[in-house]
Amino acid sequence: MINLDKEPTKPDSKIDRKKAEEETEKLKEKLSDLQNVLYAEHKHSLLVILQGTDASGKDGTVKHVFSSTNPMGVNVKAFKAPTEEESEYDFLWRVHKYTPAKGMIQIFNRSHYEDILVPTVHKLFDKDTIERRYDIINSFEQNLVDSGTVILKFFLNISKAEQKERIGERLTKQSKKWKYDPADKRELHHWDEYMKVYEKIFDKCSSKIPWIIVPADSKWYRNYVVAKEMVKTLESLKMKYPSL
Amino acid sequence: MINLDKEPTKPDSKIDRKKAEEETEKLKEKLSDLQNVLYAEHKHSLLVILQGTDASGKDGTVKHVFSSTNPMGVNVKAFKAPTEEESEYDFLWRVHKYTPAKGMIQIFNRSHYEDILVPTVHKLFDKDTIERRYDIINSFEQNLVDSGTVILKFFLNISKAEQKERIGERLTKQSKKWKYDPADKRELHHWDEYMKVYEKIFDKCSSKIPWIIVPADSKWYRNYVVAKEMVKTLESLKMKYPSL
Repeated sequence: MINLDKEPTKPDSKIDRKKAEEETEKLKEKLSDLQNVLYAEHKHSLLVILQGTDASGKDGTVKHVFSSTNPMGVNVKAFKAPTEEESEYDFLWRVHKYTPAKGMIQIFNRSHYEDILVPTVHKLFDKDTIERRYDIINSFEQNLVDSGTVILKFFLNISKAEQKERIGERLTKQSKKWKYDPADKRELHHWDEYMKVYEKIFDKCSSKIPWIIVPADSKWYRNYVVAKEMVKTLESLKMKYPSL
Repeated sequence: MINLDKEPTKPDSKIDRKKAEEETEKLKEKLSDLQNVLYAEHKHSLLVILQGTDASGKDGTVKHVFSSTNPMGVNVKAFKAPTEEESEYDFLWRVHKYTPAKGMIQIFNRSHYEDILVPTVHKLFDKDTIERRYDIINSFEQNLVDSGTVILKFFLNISKAEQKERIGERLTKQSKKWKYDPADKRELHHWDEYMKVYEKIFDKCSSKIPWIIVPADSKWYRNYVVAKEMVKTLESLKMKYPSL
């Protein structure tokens, strides 16, 4: 079982920053080509799930890794607290609407895993119901895979110190102030509890589609790791442009 | 395991037609009251799944049993062959969109079970993928139940002879001709295969939410049985009008 205390948040010391940054640019070009053939072949789709604490860099990952792709084939959906309408239905109803059509890349900025995390930490309802959600999610994802969707699940792993610094920036830096939310501060007190739930998620929801734990204290390394995994996965599909 | 050859298609001989018809009218009034409190309480929802061969009376059941309810709180969705858009997604995508919000009754005229029936009989894809759909459906329904949805699954059981007569009517009776579809005739040749798949569905998808097999050769008896089950289920929820 994964122990997040022992998972690195800092870059692999064997990797040179400048080289990695150059490599990331090349990977982004490849990603752009791969997205084009994914769209053209119209056989698979790709769902990218980004999870992590506040300020772990989910928005930044989307911005930097996907900046070379064609927006026609890429959609991003950020899941916040359920709206009044969404609360009328089961927790997967709003998520299912945004799963990708064939040929498309869909990015989830937070996801259905929040519906395990938040209810567990805040004890929103009985344990058995929450417990069942692990299996319900596994089954939901299996069904997507069976219909040709490839799923990549990233956890952006940052240290408490790095998070503190980034949230501090939100209070002082003009271009970051809009991201500040007093609610984030309340959630900080629950850091250890959230990590415990994440560990359980990695344990119970990884058998078919493993979680990728990304050391995310340095943005350049985070972008490099995510871009590399994306390219590796898309290349493994051996996609081809259809002939005339 | 249920053997459909041994399940009655004719009414229970102990039940008098005239009395049952009177009782059905009373049940429909009760159903109308219960729907009102379901809507007002806004806690549960009801999903009614109607399955059966062509001409088994799915449309007729909707028309006769629900004719006293308030259309504001009742929606009907008929699932036909998937559209081009629906084929872009997993088989539950189009179904999930139509699950009921709190307070609502949703009727499925055919349902996600067609996505086991048709692929099995017509061997549309590999056995393992079809086999997994039983579990995926069980998990999907469990999730609906966990969010407050009550599910009733009816199989309208008619005999081959009755079906033949009803399809014959579609060729001759002015008000029924619009229902005739030459494709139905092709499916008739697969009757026995469809029944085998239904038996497997009753076996594998009944542990949490049992199927109700309705003897459906006589419309008055079918309506009586469905109305009775509906009322029984809604009464068991012990719903209450909210106070001011």
